[in-house]
Amino acid sequence: MTLTGYSLPLSPSGSSSSLTSPPWYFSGEVVMVDYRVDPAAAARFLPPELELGPDPGAAAAVFAEWQWCSESGAELEDPAGSRFSEFLILLGCSFGGEPMARCPYAWVDQAVPLMRGWVQGMPKQFGSVHLTRPVQVGRAGPRMAAGGRFSASLAVRDHRVAEVAVTLAEPAEPPHLHAVPLVHNRHFPAWVPGEKPLHQLVASEVRDVEFGPVWRGSGAFRLLPGADEDLASLAPVEVGAGYAFSYAETLVSGRRLG
Amino acid sequence: MTLTGYSLPLSPSGSSSSLTSPPWYFSGEVVMVDYRVDPAAAARFLPPELELGPDPGAAAAVFAEWQWCSESGAELEDPAGSRFSEFLILLGCSFGGEPMARCPYAWVDQAVPLMRGWVQGMPKQFGSVHLTRPVQVGRAGPRMAAGGRFSASLAVRDHRVAEVAVTLAEPAEPPHLHAVPLVHNRHFPAWVPGEKPLHQLVASEVRDVEFGPVWRGSGAFRLLPGADEDLASLAPVEVGAGYAFSYAETLVSGRRLG
Amino acid sequence: MTLTGYSLPLSPSGSSSSLTSPPWYFSGEVVMVDYRVDPAAAARFLPPELELGPDPGAAAAVFAEWQWCSESGAELEDPAGSRFSEFLILLGCSFGGEPMARCPYAWVDQAVPLMRGWVQGMPKQFGSVHLTRPVQVGRAGPRMAAGGRFSASLAVRDHRVAEVAVTLAEPAEPPHLHAVPLVHNRHFPAWVPGEKPLHQLVASEVRDVEFGPVWRGSGAFRLLPGADEDLASLAPVEVGAGYAFSYAETLVSGRRLG
Amino acid sequence: MTLTGYSLPLSPSGSSSSLTSPPWYFSGEVVMVDYRVDPAAAARFLPPELELGPDPGAAAAVFAEWQWCSESGAELEDPAGSRFSEFLILLGCSFGGEPMARCPYAWVDQAVPLMRGWVQGMPKQFGSVHLTRPVQVGRAGPRMAAGGRFSASLAVRDHRVAEVAVTLAEPAEPPHLHAVPLVHNRHFPAWVPGEKPLHQLVASEVRDVEFGPVWRGSGAFRLLPGADEDLASLAPVEVGAGYAFSYAETLVSGRRLG
Repeated sequence: MTLTGYSLPLSPSGSSSSLTSPPWYFSGEVVMVDYRVDPAAAARFLPPELELGPDPGAAAAVFAEWQWCSESGAELEDPAGSRFSEFLILLGCSFGGEPMARCPYAWVDQAVPLMRGWVQGMPKQFGSVHLTRPVQVGRAGPRMAAGGRFSASLAVRDHRVAEVAVTLAEPAEPPHLHAVPLVHNRHFPAWVPGEKPLHQLVASEVRDVEFGPVWRGSGAFRLLPGADEDLASLAPVEVGAGYAFSYAETLVSGRRLG
Repeated sequence: MTLTGYSLPLSPSGSSSSLTSPPWYFSGEVVMVDYRVDPAAAARFLPPELELGPDPGAAAAVFAEWQWCSESGAELEDPAGSRFSEFLILLGCSFGGEPMARCPYAWVDQAVPLMRGWVQGMPKQFGSVHLTRPVQVGRAGPRMAAGGRFSASLAVRDHRVAEVAVTLAEPAEPPHLHAVPLVHNRHFPAWVPGEKPLHQLVASEVRDVEFGPVWRGSGAFRLLPGADEDLASLAPVEVGAGYAFSYAETLVSGRRLG
Repeated sequence: MTLTGYSLPLSPSGSSSSLTSPPWYFSGEVVMVDYRVDPAAAARFLPPELELGPDPGAAAAVFAEWQWCSESGAELEDPAGSRFSEFLILLGCSFGGEPMARCPYAWVDQAVPLMRGWVQGMPKQFGSVHLTRPVQVGRAGPRMAAGGRFSASLAVRDHRVAEVAVTLAEPAEPPHLHAVPLVHNRHFPAWVPGEKPLHQLVASEVRDVEFGPVWRGSGAFRLLPGADEDLASLAPVEVGAGYAFSYAETLVSGRRLG
Repeated sequence: MTLTGYSLPLSPSGSSSSLTSPPWYFSGEVVMVDYRVDPAAAARFLPPELELGPDPGAAAAVFAEWQWCSESGAELEDPAGSRFSEFLILLGCSFGGEPMARCPYAWVDQAVPLMRGWVQGMPKQFGSVHLTRPVQVGRAGPRMAAGGRFSASLAVRDHRVAEVAVTLAEPAEPPHLHAVPLVHNRHFPAWVPGEKPLHQLVASEVRDVEFGPVWRGSGAFRLLPGADEDLASLAPVEVGAGYAFSYAETLVSGRRLG
């Protein structure tokens, strides 16, 4: 007889685990703005194994609204538990010449994806995230078409932290930073004095990546980082194109780097 | 110098009004199940001016996720204030031979549409409302197509109150109860002893009604009304077809009946 | 057979009314800062029947955390529905020589007190409200005693709007603006074209007013009103004493003025 | 140059860590009911190193509303981030003859204490938690005195899961299960295929434990566990005394057992 489960809470049969085991399936709507940061600031967010790569200072501000499920798909039967929204920052980087994206900050509005983020090394925090949705009929929302205007915002503990706006102009290819692997530091604090935290450099393994039609246009991005100077160091020095698209992936596991 | 505004709070310029003046524009996604109630129970929810009409006991359980804006469209720039979700019950009825729908109960998850409901006479209360969204790519959600499965739930003060599920089978016409005018009792309590509440029978005037492709299939609906026997009296005696569709309308004003 | 109830939703027995009928009982913890506004700005928030009174520009920023119940007390059995927090601004004024307080703005974090506010004419909107609570043991909170430090914040649609801080120094009398009657404009929009809104000037009738020990000290208050210039006109030109105290009252009805 | 911080997100200076490093200070109000479970069910929630101890089947249902801060106390300046509520189940057990308490399930309504729970091995999940607060004045709440009646509830994904009620009768000693050390399995999933999860048996080290006056009386406890049979196995076979009290502690670190 042993307590079992993929995650806490462990229980006799394992049925109480708050996280289901991977793979995890995601389908969502993304509103994203390319921007540039000071390359020296970006470099300070990379562990020693990573390099800035061929385009130093490339960054993106990514809002997304997701549905997710596990292998059984059972979560979709109860939408109170299968939707969440997210904001994250991406920095271009490379590992041994392979282009990757580093996520220095991420916020989600549900606890299960937050915990799942920590399992992967994705540094998710809790925030209030809102996005415009494209609509099919009527005036109360944009179409996924030229002229469609999308907005999104993040607040943390009742403070606004980030806002983006995108006005679509034309079909486009998927934006680079959303199409490369993510590389994370799994980091879980120690609790017993004298022990060391768990710490690993891993790339996320995904499959079944699918982009819906990608639209590109003008972008705007404001970062209002409050008192955190580290976050403030990633404010835009230049803002580039904006994008909106549907996206899906299956998140499978991690791959050790270094 | 007078205090002014469409609604409270009144202020010198009127800019503080928590409600914008109509028209109000809505675009959304609807998941709906036709069902039947005891006709005698439905009759008890009609004011004397209304009749049950040609199909006594016809009812619907309607979940919807909305975006809205006022004439300027400014609300869409800040999605933290321009989205809400809703659950409502509809009962078939008629006024002077005109087919209408009576909404005995409605719940929304944002305060502005709640207050706006009371202006119209729509009896909105606060609830936690969740719906599956159709997705364009990937496995984590239904397609708006045969086999697509949608779920939705309502909780009030942390108690589950209603759940629906719909599995789409085929294209269809818009369901009857979503296509007829709503008839409400505007009712606002008196506050000074001896005075009477405001009380009016009104039909809602809408324009620009637009349905996206309507899909129909099998439906399921559970009502878990807790201690409220009046709500319990509208539990399903039979459950009919389910529907999913996009819908838009512009809500303009009320029309007095009687 | 008639539909009945104190408020919407009306139902056969009246049991579905989302508001219980008054009297309503309140017990809470208040954190409050006296401040001064430009008297001309305050005057613009008074209807013609009211005057600024003997202390033009007197104002207060009041945070409170409440429990409430109706005559039966049944709400206290389910704390998911019997607690809320509130922020409001008060302006000193007088009616026919009687000192009163005008509430130009108020925010609450639950829908039932919001609706109840509109019944009284109190211009409640929805906001996210947080207060420090006094504690009995340990280090994680202030004592209701000299040196106790209390903070509170309001956010609306994920924007910070108001922040206060109070450091207690000494016992004191109840602050004036929390001890005089509130005077409101009940205002409910019309819906049928050509009709006029309901509009009445009323004072709130309360009984059983009870103050716990009142502590006074230094106060701080910031108003960050975003784009609303009417709200901005009530920003502090001077900040006075801060207070913390327990408070209870029974809200009974309205009294017509003028 | 290395990325640093107590927890994710790591950043150049460490200022972005979502968790502050311990010690963590807690002051709160507890509403708790002693109950008994099937001892065989309790045993199935113990790892092999633990025994049921001298009172097999002893259990408690514990609701608490907390304020917390780190060494600096800065969190108390912003109550939007320094309060949370919690529900947990405790089971009596022993390790090498030392009486301890096992927490098989816990829920909190804020993400930071949830993550902090996982660092300790406390199996916190996200839930909606509400408690009655004692009041000082008025009718809308209990006094911490004979006859005072407290209620509390937990909902998870909009389903009610637990409800307690306590009516105070007399002063008492602190309840046993709230006065012994907690023993947890720290468990953090692996992510790279072939690796093992982090897994440690630890007792929590606390200091500065302080109880306010403890009141005891009759208790009620309902567990509505939905589909999780493991949780259901801990439903009460007998319900004992209820308690309400203020409590504080400082949580310092973990101590390895075994």
